[in-house]
Amino acid sequence: MKTARELGLMPESRLAVGPDNGITDVPGVAVGHRSLRGEGIFTGVTAILPHPGDLFRLKPRAAVEVINGFGKSAGLMQVAELGTIETPILLTNTFGVAACTEALIRRAIAANPAIGRKTSTVNPLVCECNDGSINDIQALAVTPGDAMAALDEARAGPVEQGAVGAGSGMTAFGFKAGIGTASRRLRIGKRDFMLGTLVLANFGAAGDLVLPDGRRPDPRVPASPERGSVIVITATDLPLGDRQLQRVARRGGAGLARLGAFWGHGSGDIVLCFTTADPVEHDPAKAFSTQERLADDHIDIAFRAAAETTQEAVLNALCMAPATPARNGRLYPALADWLKENPSP
Amino acid sequence: MKTARELGLMPESRLAVGPDNGITDVPGVAVGHRSLRGEGIFTGVTAILPHPGDLFRLKPRAAVEVINGFGKSAGLMQVAELGTIETPILLTNTFGVAACTEALIRRAIAANPAIGRKTSTVNPLVCECNDGSINDIQALAVTPGDAMAALDEARAGPVEQGAVGAGSGMTAFGFKAGIGTASRRLRIGKRDFMLGTLVLANFGAAGDLVLPDGRRPDPRVPASPERGSVIVITATDLPLGDRQLQRVARRGGAGLARLGAFWGHGSGDIVLCFTTADPVEHDPAKAFSTQERLADDHIDIAFRAAAETTQEAVLNALCMAPATPARNGRLYPALADWLKENPSP
Amino acid sequence: MKTARELGLMPESRLAVGPDNGITDVPGVAVGHRSLRGEGIFTGVTAILPHPGDLFRLKPRAAVEVINGFGKSAGLMQVAELGTIETPILLTNTFGVAACTEALIRRAIAANPAIGRKTSTVNPLVCECNDGSINDIQALAVTPGDAMAALDEARAGPVEQGAVGAGSGMTAFGFKAGIGTASRRLRIGKRDFMLGTLVLANFGAAGDLVLPDGRRPDPRVPASPERGSVIVITATDLPLGDRQLQRVARRGGAGLARLGAFWGHGSGDIVLCFTTADPVEHDPAKAFSTQERLADDHIDIAFRAAAETTQEAVLNALCMAPATPARNGRLYPALADWLKENPSP
Amino acid sequence: MKTARELGLMPESRLAVGPDNGITDVPGVAVGHRSLRGEGIFTGVTAILPHPGDLFRLKPRAAVEVINGFGKSAGLMQVAELGTIETPILLTNTFGVAACTEALIRRAIAANPAIGRKTSTVNPLVCECNDGSINDIQALAVTPGDAMAALDEARAGPVEQGAVGAGSGMTAFGFKAGIGTASRRLRIGKRDFMLGTLVLANFGAAGDLVLPDGRRPDPRVPASPERGSVIVITATDLPLGDRQLQRVARRGGAGLARLGAFWGHGSGDIVLCFTTADPVEHDPAKAFSTQERLADDHIDIAFRAAAETTQEAVLNALCMAPATPARNGRLYPALADWLKENPSP
Repeated sequence: MKTARELGLMPESRLAVGPDNGITDVPGVAVGHRSLRGEGIFTGVTAILPHPGDLFRLKPRAAVEVINGFGKSAGLMQVAELGTIETPILLTNTFGVAACTEALIRRAIAANPAIGRKTSTVNPLVCECNDGSINDIQALAVTPGDAMAALDEARAGPVEQGAVGAGSGMTAFGFKAGIGTASRRLRIGKRDFMLGTLVLANFGAAGDLVLPDGRRPDPRVPASPERGSVIVITATDLPLGDRQLQRVARRGGAGLARLGAFWGHGSGDIVLCFTTADPVEHDPAKAFSTQERLADDHIDIAFRAAAETTQEAVLNALCMAPATPARNGRLYPALADWLKENPSP
Repeated sequence: MKTARELGLMPESRLAVGPDNGITDVPGVAVGHRSLRGEGIFTGVTAILPHPGDLFRLKPRAAVEVINGFGKSAGLMQVAELGTIETPILLTNTFGVAACTEALIRRAIAANPAIGRKTSTVNPLVCECNDGSINDIQALAVTPGDAMAALDEARAGPVEQGAVGAGSGMTAFGFKAGIGTASRRLRIGKRDFMLGTLVLANFGAAGDLVLPDGRRPDPRVPASPERGSVIVITATDLPLGDRQLQRVARRGGAGLARLGAFWGHGSGDIVLCFTTADPVEHDPAKAFSTQERLADDHIDIAFRAAAETTQEAVLNALCMAPATPARNGRLYPALADWLKENPSP
Repeated sequence: MKTARELGLMPESRLAVGPDNGITDVPGVAVGHRSLRGEGIFTGVTAILPHPGDLFRLKPRAAVEVINGFGKSAGLMQVAELGTIETPILLTNTFGVAACTEALIRRAIAANPAIGRKTSTVNPLVCECNDGSINDIQALAVTPGDAMAALDEARAGPVEQGAVGAGSGMTAFGFKAGIGTASRRLRIGKRDFMLGTLVLANFGAAGDLVLPDGRRPDPRVPASPERGSVIVITATDLPLGDRQLQRVARRGGAGLARLGAFWGHGSGDIVLCFTTADPVEHDPAKAFSTQERLADDHIDIAFRAAAETTQEAVLNALCMAPATPARNGRLYPALADWLKENPSP
Repeated sequence: MKTARELGLMPESRLAVGPDNGITDVPGVAVGHRSLRGEGIFTGVTAILPHPGDLFRLKPRAAVEVINGFGKSAGLMQVAELGTIETPILLTNTFGVAACTEALIRRAIAANPAIGRKTSTVNPLVCECNDGSINDIQALAVTPGDAMAALDEARAGPVEQGAVGAGSGMTAFGFKAGIGTASRRLRIGKRDFMLGTLVLANFGAAGDLVLPDGRRPDPRVPASPERGSVIVITATDLPLGDRQLQRVARRGGAGLARLGAFWGHGSGDIVLCFTTADPVEHDPAKAFSTQERLADDHIDIAFRAAAETTQEAVLNALCMAPATPARNGRLYPALADWLKENPSP
């Protein structure tokens, strides 16, 4: 499969693209997939690790933007309050959240036996979309072991995209979709930073997709009320304050809207944005620490990058997923096939 | 054990008390407990059912107020977006959330086989506090079966309070605490309504408790940073609009503050408020329905009742829990014993 | 000047357009302009009246969405709390807010002498953008009399667009802009409703505008940090609950993003959405009233209409404003001229 | 008049009190009053200056908590978005907001002629309560000159309390009230900080006030629906991150609730919290700066101080205001007189 750029789509790109055009362009970030295949089972887990260390001991700072809260993600409330994450981020199907939660708790306790006893409990972070039109979601097929496998698979470098991991059974705008990613380089003064986004794309009604050139691909599937969702994970190494992170997170919604989405009623549209700069120690030796902070006058570059990477990551999720049969027998087509049949004028 | 009133404490009570002074005074509301006891295990599950019917088909309207979001509850984001609940509410310990979530999903699917397939998924609603100072929380002792048992136990009538169900291992202000409840009668024009609150009380630093008469009971336990939480569930049959429900939910925080709490950093202080009036159908036959709505000029009575019942429910949780040993061997004293030793002047 | 449609731009339009393609297609809504011209003065006031009656006595229900809060609007906090508006909505330049506020207070007191004495005070609602690159904003030229004049001018029927009223000195994406409007017809079951939007467009960096066909018009003006804003007023007669109104308001941001905006740091991007259905009496005779409410399953049509009308209203604001000199002597070009020079292929 | 402590009330005080027990104990903070007296006029303006320099050039970081948004304050939205304040804070009566706004704009332009032209506009910050039961609020008596006078009067040192400045015509819990202040010393590690609060107290229904000893003073005035408000301004020199400031701001609500308030429907209950640590430059020479940040493990001391100072500041506002006639002829009694008649047992 080819990326959106390789297929000739030119996503909004005022900013330069990172070396792998993925979330892993942010130094330290790793991604792993566990794909489940079986009788009626077409689902999985995707893990994002913000840094290679113990996340409970050294918490990346983060913010959550709930664009539309029709969703069942776990752990977002505490991120919203404290502005930190303390486990890897797992993506899975809606009914796999409990299994992923359990895996994250057991993994954190194994590394930090004081959790829940001599120190606070741990906040497992799991986001989800409903893949029930392709996968037998009622089978509750995802196990804590699958979550562990995705975590073990995580590595830096190019990210596998499309119908893989949590993206296995996802669809968007009537096409097969799944995992996509993109990145931008941020040059501020003489310093270079990266901002990368990974999406789990499972949203948008058939016929609503708008390509960067204004065309509207018709998947020729029956219209149906949107019951999808989209999870947007944005990572950066730019030193942003807590309020700035929140504002960057919000701009993911602009990237989605440029694709024709209007954040439908039945869609859980969630953005989680973290920075690897100045993480917070769980048990700091000193009462005060210093943090670097970008001047607000320069923040538009990060807003722009958040919107651009979100848009392109979704396009990649669409372009890199092959046509796949639904549980009801109909086929979710591939956007790549539509593009082949409908060459740009 | 005796209630706060029976022990001579006079909680703020401008409004008349309901017949059972509990959340179950709201017609249709039922409460059930499952208490787990074993080697190091002192925990459980408490279930609140807003009405006896299928909650997924007929969704009570609700609002969430996150006073302090250091917590791991499940399902709150969707309530905040849609303003409805579609499963019973389960309370448990922090690491029991996944098991309770799974139970609610399986129970909803059993009653509604289309869930996640031909219709949207279901949003399990589980709130939690950390009982790790009394219970071996790392044992992950709560199972889906325990959640089912609490649901099966649910009934109307007087609520068992203190160290029972989810309240088994909870503490507050250095004393043993747990489950408490209280209610108020709301007379508006010539109509009578009920507002009742149930709390899972596990918050407040030792020495901070303020009794209604201004006294400050000292539990004589070593000071320690607050790592607790408090869950406040407020039910009413008053017809409130969505925005009004949100405003009533917020007033639970006033009830907590009157007890001396300042909503500490490490505490997950959550209020969930629902009305049984004008529930929302999952699959309505008609596009439009009518709802009754209280004039805002009358809403202060509901604000007052929310604050009063929250304060009194916590006092009951404290008064009705016996002294209990912690995992480290020290004893969490009973407030009832302190009151006996320190009679009101 | 011609509208976007007349100029051949085809804004997203899955839904049918209303008779005047404007906010006044919503029955009862009236719009009036007061344009100020003079030495260095190029500014004004625009008034939107939700219904022809006394708004303080009969308050339309409303919701506010702050997309980016870099702005100085008055009155939004109370709308967010109570969900009602009780004065007309005035739009003006940033330093005209105080004068408009005073006019609204005096007008409300004149009609309701009990205000602030025997009843609560009144909440004047004034939104603003900074027109300082064309208008001498420091002159504080807008007076309470100008606000009154705009109110007196308000009427139903087609809305004057472009460089008029509050839109006089506004610019967007490096082009001259101002006031724009659009509407959509909502058919739900056998009932017809209207949703219309009026914008005060003063946002977007030069070069960022994306037309519906994917082209990016270059105004050939020097790049400068965005210091604009955009006010989006959306009206409907659809019976929406308070929470639904909030969700519709949020979708205005999708309409802006489809134009290439990413809600820049220095921009006050505000949406105010009201319904004329089931307004709230100031002093109701009865404690309870009924409201009609749309089933959530049907709400996507309103989301779609909010996004579509916002996008088209901004395009109209751009298309209907003529080239205008800035205070520094340079010319803000007209998008209509660019479209003439760059015919669609 | 005497303070609450001098009258024998013992406000919650786990922490040590500052030298002047006022907001001006925070180094650099100054307060000034302008009191208006005349035929039916009993109102004024109070100014709080976070530091003696140009606030537009060097912006203190701040957060807003809207406890109940029934109010007409100006400037809060931008503080919520950007986390900075750029003018002094003015308090006045509800219909004085426009005049105070104009004064702040003119003053900022005088010092920074580029405002609104070569740089962004300025965000005037004005909070208000309705003093209409004592003052002829419809006279719109406050002028920009009065606002300037309050600003000119601002100085460090002990703050005049009671019926002065903006507090002239305010009442609370059926008693005469107005301006009050209190402070606490925060010792963290070996460093000392100050946190001080100033309130404009105009809230609470007659009979609802709870004194620290549990007594409920009855002002023997007719019950009436609450139409008041309370503005809480909290200052500190503690280095707090943006998210931490927000959390401290929220705790002002706990201080109000301890007095018996439940944040009534008709009350605009607003908290504004700022720190003088690490202010933000308007036009920074460098893209990155560093900020100090307190470890969250230590933040409970700031939460406690916010609640304690809010409670005590309101008690001072009540204790230091003399009995005053209302516009309708009845007398608002002084709490000091009630305390004299009702000595503590």
